[in-house]
Amino acid sequence: MAIKGFAMLGIGSVGVIEKDYLEEVTTGKRLECGPLDAIVKPIAVATCTSDLHTCYEGGIGDRKNMFLGHEAVGEIIEVGEHVYDFKVGDKVIVPAITPDWNSINAQRGFAQHSGGPLSGWKFSNFKDGVFAEKFHVNDADGNLALLPNNVDPVDAVMLCDMVTTGFHCAESADIKIGETVAVIGLGPVGLMACAGANLMGASEIYAVDCIDFRYEVAHKHYGATHFVNFKKGKFQDQINELTNGRGVDKILIAAGTVQTIGDACECLINGGIISNINYLGTGDTITIPRLAWDVGMGHKTITGGLTPGGRYELEKLTRLLQTNKLNVKPLITHRLKGNFETVAQSLALMKNKPEGLIKPAVELEW
Amino acid sequence: MAIKGFAMLGIGSVGVIEKDYLEEVTTGKRLECGPLDAIVKPIAVATCTSDLHTCYEGGIGDRKNMFLGHEAVGEIIEVGEHVYDFKVGDKVIVPAITPDWNSINAQRGFAQHSGGPLSGWKFSNFKDGVFAEKFHVNDADGNLALLPNNVDPVDAVMLCDMVTTGFHCAESADIKIGETVAVIGLGPVGLMACAGANLMGASEIYAVDCIDFRYEVAHKHYGATHFVNFKKGKFQDQINELTNGRGVDKILIAAGTVQTIGDACECLINGGIISNINYLGTGDTITIPRLAWDVGMGHKTITGGLTPGGRYELEKLTRLLQTNKLNVKPLITHRLKGNFETVAQSLALMKNKPEGLIKPAVELEW
Amino acid sequence: MAIKGFAMLGIGSVGVIEKDYLEEVTTGKRLECGPLDAIVKPIAVATCTSDLHTCYEGGIGDRKNMFLGHEAVGEIIEVGEHVYDFKVGDKVIVPAITPDWNSINAQRGFAQHSGGPLSGWKFSNFKDGVFAEKFHVNDADGNLALLPNNVDPVDAVMLCDMVTTGFHCAESADIKIGETVAVIGLGPVGLMACAGANLMGASEIYAVDCIDFRYEVAHKHYGATHFVNFKKGKFQDQINELTNGRGVDKILIAAGTVQTIGDACECLINGGIISNINYLGTGDTITIPRLAWDVGMGHKTITGGLTPGGRYELEKLTRLLQTNKLNVKPLITHRLKGNFETVAQSLALMKNKPEGLIKPAVELEW
Amino acid sequence: MAIKGFAMLGIGSVGVIEKDYLEEVTTGKRLECGPLDAIVKPIAVATCTSDLHTCYEGGIGDRKNMFLGHEAVGEIIEVGEHVYDFKVGDKVIVPAITPDWNSINAQRGFAQHSGGPLSGWKFSNFKDGVFAEKFHVNDADGNLALLPNNVDPVDAVMLCDMVTTGFHCAESADIKIGETVAVIGLGPVGLMACAGANLMGASEIYAVDCIDFRYEVAHKHYGATHFVNFKKGKFQDQINELTNGRGVDKILIAAGTVQTIGDACECLINGGIISNINYLGTGDTITIPRLAWDVGMGHKTITGGLTPGGRYELEKLTRLLQTNKLNVKPLITHRLKGNFETVAQSLALMKNKPEGLIKPAVELEW
Repeated sequence: MAIKGFAMLGIGSVGVIEKDYLEEVTTGKRLECGPLDAIVKPIAVATCTSDLHTCYEGGIGDRKNMFLGHEAVGEIIEVGEHVYDFKVGDKVIVPAITPDWNSINAQRGFAQHSGGPLSGWKFSNFKDGVFAEKFHVNDADGNLALLPNNVDPVDAVMLCDMVTTGFHCAESADIKIGETVAVIGLGPVGLMACAGANLMGASEIYAVDCIDFRYEVAHKHYGATHFVNFKKGKFQDQINELTNGRGVDKILIAAGTVQTIGDACECLINGGIISNINYLGTGDTITIPRLAWDVGMGHKTITGGLTPGGRYELEKLTRLLQTNKLNVKPLITHRLKGNFETVAQSLALMKNKPEGLIKPAVELEW
Repeated sequence: MAIKGFAMLGIGSVGVIEKDYLEEVTTGKRLECGPLDAIVKPIAVATCTSDLHTCYEGGIGDRKNMFLGHEAVGEIIEVGEHVYDFKVGDKVIVPAITPDWNSINAQRGFAQHSGGPLSGWKFSNFKDGVFAEKFHVNDADGNLALLPNNVDPVDAVMLCDMVTTGFHCAESADIKIGETVAVIGLGPVGLMACAGANLMGASEIYAVDCIDFRYEVAHKHYGATHFVNFKKGKFQDQINELTNGRGVDKILIAAGTVQTIGDACECLINGGIISNINYLGTGDTITIPRLAWDVGMGHKTITGGLTPGGRYELEKLTRLLQTNKLNVKPLITHRLKGNFETVAQSLALMKNKPEGLIKPAVELEW
Repeated sequence: MAIKGFAMLGIGSVGVIEKDYLEEVTTGKRLECGPLDAIVKPIAVATCTSDLHTCYEGGIGDRKNMFLGHEAVGEIIEVGEHVYDFKVGDKVIVPAITPDWNSINAQRGFAQHSGGPLSGWKFSNFKDGVFAEKFHVNDADGNLALLPNNVDPVDAVMLCDMVTTGFHCAESADIKIGETVAVIGLGPVGLMACAGANLMGASEIYAVDCIDFRYEVAHKHYGATHFVNFKKGKFQDQINELTNGRGVDKILIAAGTVQTIGDACECLINGGIISNINYLGTGDTITIPRLAWDVGMGHKTITGGLTPGGRYELEKLTRLLQTNKLNVKPLITHRLKGNFETVAQSLALMKNKPEGLIKPAVELEW
Repeated sequence: MAIKGFAMLGIGSVGVIEKDYLEEVTTGKRLECGPLDAIVKPIAVATCTSDLHTCYEGGIGDRKNMFLGHEAVGEIIEVGEHVYDFKVGDKVIVPAITPDWNSINAQRGFAQHSGGPLSGWKFSNFKDGVFAEKFHVNDADGNLALLPNNVDPVDAVMLCDMVTTGFHCAESADIKIGETVAVIGLGPVGLMACAGANLMGASEIYAVDCIDFRYEVAHKHYGATHFVNFKKGKFQDQINELTNGRGVDKILIAAGTVQTIGDACECLINGGIISNINYLGTGDTITIPRLAWDVGMGHKTITGGLTPGGRYELEKLTRLLQTNKLNVKPLITHRLKGNFETVAQSLALMKNKPEGLIKPAVELEW
């Protein structure tokens, strides 16, 4: 029985197709439901900027007829014999990153790099993604989280990648109560980095973007206190001016280029941390002005990386929705209902970036 | 010229008195404004449960004619020649704990123990306190914070001890986004521990007390999600039931006895942390059931201690008021105006605990 | 084909027996080699004080005909189909603690409590142990480490529990270069706690025991600098005297009673950490003098728990043997060769504690 | 009475001169012994590569007639009235970095940046250095450490900068027991970074340099296990080959250029840390290959900065000498005795780099 879904056909080309089976696209290996695995049918999904990188920029190299997507809430339709905590019929939230938890890198605390750099990211990277009638989840007990009854599936889709990624950015900066923070870029991940900083107790949050509407969301819902419009001058100069030359304690980078880390060093206090969550798609070298890094003597720490994913992370985030500590609804500017053609439209929306768009999501009608 | 103030006359006895000079009460040494010091005249002050312990329970031993008080906002009336950042006329927030910052213990990261255990606490402990026409502050540059124009002095008095102490309790528990927390005791420090947990991103917060009104404040303003009334059964049993036996990630103790830490172990998950901020005034030994501590094998960490105090801490907290990330007004149930007799009434209020009291504060009229 | 091994027959009774199959002893479930598992034949094993607790004190409750032992190096004789990194014939080091790495608690950083408190400890606890012709290892890829050619199997057996447990004690105390440390108890785990403290850069190490010979080993091989003989007075008093009243930065507890933590508080500096690795087998409550804990205000952190186990931990420790940074030979005072009767003799040795014993180990002859 | 000493006369020019008084060279302000200060007469001193940078490369800008030097052990000849722990005649170790401990940055945990970036570094930077008949120490109680009787003053001079700087590099990399480390550059600071890594429990230590003799010292005394001669190929390629492509957990950079951090990224495991202690004197921008930094997703943390200095740090390091946990004698390849002309010769030695030189030191004869 063929599986329908929305796929990358090759670089620059997408479409709704049917495939005979799910596969590990880098090897062509057919994916079955192994003893620890689950097969899930999506209920709600979201398209991501990464899907655009993958399809249109060849961000991960060429892929032929690979189902796209890594943000989904779904219903389990099959489980392996060694899955103990989930059963067919359970509604689950599926993280974008599904590590191999027994790997050395997971034991080292870096599950996202289980099996190699970034290899915890499997959906629409190494294997067929979630924009299909069914998809394969490795290690169900380690990677799925139950969708509680009182949580909206479309809200929950925001946890799969947007929230966990933004929060990971904030958490990697080790924000302390009362510290000052800058957030570079107010797309959905940047907004969640802002929300993460706010949830960690940041006082002043300098939000850097060029779109007023996004700052309004950041300010009204996610704790941003100052708008820094980078069209009006270098963000670092504006932040230095607003802080009387002190700079900020922590900087969260969710957009920019290979120069942005260096720019950030210019408005970071000694002992501060720059946490990057921005996928650097182009440019040969990251460049950091020697003097802005205080000739190597300034304790300006630079870090960053892929969100860890997995079950525990999702369970924690779900509790924030349940306790109303986090409201993701302002992110979801476009709630669509439909089928895989609708998913295609959602991706087109992201490509075209209409005014007022933050993040679209699609509830699938079966 | 005599200095008037509200003093402990001896254990069990208080009154408004005049003294010829400020003194280090444990040695009788007269306190002058040394080269790094400041002399401050109070604008607003607050009475604290510690003042009650000191006066009526002899918590720190006997003291004769010692001005009480360690929570104050004031105006500088004299500074030493090596004070660089403050000048006469500056309005300042004064922390309850004023460490010697060059001490070994401060360099080790434990400024509150500079000069010996708890010796960062000087006001109305080793020297005359802040309930006087003027008081002495050691190391002005290291210990004072400017009162911003847009911050209410009475609000700011809450930072001196209540907020920093409650937050230190939460911070010592290393709360991570989405974790679950219990707070034992909803007096002003417990409420600020709750607020601290909420600011650090806790999801579920189980607030333990026996007074509905206090929970309402905790829930409405400081993020508490569940009320655990200890009059209705052991708090640990109730928390285990509410969490389906899992227990919570972190427990903040702001009230109780030498048994409370042991009780808390019974509803703490392995790998959790108990952070105690409760001054244990009576009892020979803290007792922890061997089995509740998992026979020594359970990674149930127990920690706790006095807030660090100092300037940087106050500056961070002040920014939270300025950015409206923290609202301390719900704490201040009784705002009084007057003189040192009014301060005496404020302490009497705390002793009598009328219904609806959380924390009184006094704006001084000169 | 029956499996021979050295077993606990019931509380107080041990013997060499044959069983028809390996089992999960708490449920009676027969243990097969699941898809992620391995079956291993031991090459070298060691008996442990825990085996004594289990057999003679009923430390984990009654067990009938359970193979004992949790310290082994062996050869793989069977692997599951989803084991990727090991194959039949590989020689491997097997940790005493073999977590379920995809569990929530492992994802939280507490793998040893996967499946419940201490439930990462499976051998001779929930299932048949390693003193048998073959034994079952869950999650081979996550829990086994290759035995390098240049590492003596008997040395490597020391890593399974003694080294990892002692080092976990030191690591949990977060020892910094130059800090001062006390180690309570110089059995094999205490000696490894001492070695761990030394490897982390401790300066003065106060080793507490009553046997000169053990201190000589601690001093000559593992960095101890001062001997504190607890037969000559309270250890805390002696340490305070030796340190001019300062006390030490960190205390590692590898022996004692429910009073030892409280005693340790009396010679711990404010801001210090007590790390307990001692299994507390008897006593109702751990007692900590209220004043020694500075009435709750002193930042004397108390922590402790079971070693994490697993593959990565063993691989790191193995590298220390390979680079000669750690020498475990002084631990192994009794090297035996033989069969399961020899293992029985080894346990008897531990029970009888002859002079000069630290740790026996048995190389099995097939 | 004129003060004789060895000074920088201007960029490129040095000599023994006499000055009428000690001064803050950036302002010309005369330095007296303030209430917290001490005046010290040197007993033993060492010349540092930084002195070369300062004199011959204008590393900190031009300075006229500034006494050089920041590594000294000496005898106190005057103390301020608020110095409580030291008295005239005490022999003391003086750290290169003498922070203002009550500053905000010190309270934030970054004492070395008290008063601004790197401003904890005062000797031969903002004020006259230690190569003079007497020198001025700010905050004696916070910055001096007693020289114990059983410690050789020349050995102790190594603690002032070489040891604390190298160890800070290792500590900033948060090395865990059993991790693998690379050390780039085996000058005295690099050797101490190596020693620090070894003291923290590193297993394999890959030492990168081009001089066999230095590796021999690193291997024999400071725990290095593998020599990587960068004249035989890129160090990162050699390390990847030696580690079968895994790379190392931590990299300590004590020499190199603005490209070295980027090179190091190529042999660093995901989740690893690069800690830089190398003063980057030339080059516009630090460059990091985008792919080597895993497109921003790889958790390759980059940090680094000036050692903190101060009293507690020195006291900890001194205890390592006293307990023979650290042996600095192999660093001191040239022990000289004499006067300020001898100090001039010592600096010339460093400039000329004769074979077999690691670090010269001068015992002053009065």
